[in-house]
Amino acid sequence: MDITTCSTDLYQIIHRRRDVRAQFTGAALVADSITRILTAAHAAPSVGLTQPWDFILIEAAATKHEFWHHVTEERAAFAAVLDAERAARFSDIKIEGILESSLSIVVTYDPDRGAPAVLGRHAIADAGLYSVCLAIENLWLAATAEGYGVGWVSFYREPFLRQLLGIPEPIRPVAWLCIGPVTHLEERPDLERHGWRTRRALDTAIHYERWTDHAQSERAEQSSVQ
Amino acid sequence: MDITTCSTDLYQIIHRRRDVRAQFTGAALVADSITRILTAAHAAPSVGLTQPWDFILIEAAATKHEFWHHVTEERAAFAAVLDAERAARFSDIKIEGILESSLSIVVTYDPDRGAPAVLGRHAIADAGLYSVCLAIENLWLAATAEGYGVGWVSFYREPFLRQLLGIPEPIRPVAWLCIGPVTHLEERPDLERHGWRTRRALDTAIHYERWTDHAQSERAEQSSVQ
Repeated sequence: MDITTCSTDLYQIIHRRRDVRAQFTGAALVADSITRILTAAHAAPSVGLTQPWDFILIEAAATKHEFWHHVTEERAAFAAVLDAERAARFSDIKIEGILESSLSIVVTYDPDRGAPAVLGRHAIADAGLYSVCLAIENLWLAATAEGYGVGWVSFYREPFLRQLLGIPEPIRPVAWLCIGPVTHLEERPDLERHGWRTRRALDTAIHYERWTDHAQSERAEQSSVQ
Repeated sequence: MDITTCSTDLYQIIHRRRDVRAQFTGAALVADSITRILTAAHAAPSVGLTQPWDFILIEAAATKHEFWHHVTEERAAFAAVLDAERAARFSDIKIEGILESSLSIVVTYDPDRGAPAVLGRHAIADAGLYSVCLAIENLWLAATAEGYGVGWVSFYREPFLRQLLGIPEPIRPVAWLCIGPVTHLEERPDLERHGWRTRRALDTAIHYERWTDHAQSERAEQSSVQ
């Protein structure tokens, strides 16, 4: 194996991966890399082997503009519920790169796939939705390995997106992902750099044998950074 | 970089990863590898940088036995709703390796983390749950890179698991994962090998610009294998 293969080292990718908003160059993606990325997403585990995901690839400027306009309204709706200090901080944070990224992929969930008797879903209705998210993470890591950035936009109402893309009931949009070449990936998450929130220490997330209340130590750690 | 690093190649891991039930050896995990696996999970993207996951590591035989007993009952509940042909097929399928795997990790979701104003969750309540699944896929891929198998058990009722592990409301268990050294990873998913369901072709999952009805071609492909 040569050095090129090694640049796809799992741990390097997991820790290099960022949620990208501002760094998209607008350059096109290589067709082969899109295939590798979608093949990786499609290889994710799924409850009852249902593979309940679909991928809608969007390049049309008109669609992106309509979605961007909706997201802008939802941004304002969120800003309106914040106190003055949080609102000021939020105003500096870019939440999407819809118009700047060259490709968007909407990932959906079809609860009817493999139904009615989905093996592993009778007791947990959300298990199918969980599978879709596993595929999204595979997609995200593969895109990072290909040298792209990915940004998950979640400032939207599902009914709006369903109508925009003609997604029929009961299929549900789960994510709008912006993908494309980037100038660079930041070393720290945007929300941490902008003082919105700090990352938790791993040990506050680990429990042995039973749930342990780490809440007190976490409250001390999670106070917003200056 | 040497060949050892290359064995953690992202694409190889994504395509080698399986949902393991029968291949656990029961051997212990290396402590450093558990740390790498949890660090990878903890590096997943999360809505509003909330990192709403927790990891409960379980080795106690008594806990595993209680859970295994519950899962066995839920297996019977699922089998009871199947028609004769599906029930016969299901009877050959092992659905968990709770007692055979050396470590179990329960992953939970805390909706209160970062609340009330979680950036990116005001319009999509499930966005926090999605983040937890991204962490689970990182965990799964890292465990595969470390040479372990992972099996997601979903034949359980959330209230049972919450009580078993003392998980307080509103924290929600999302997954019980069996982890440990394995004899090997199968090349094909168990459910495909046992004729429960075939995998979809990738092109049936891809749409351009808008949703397209691939249903007809899929129905032909998804008929159960013999």
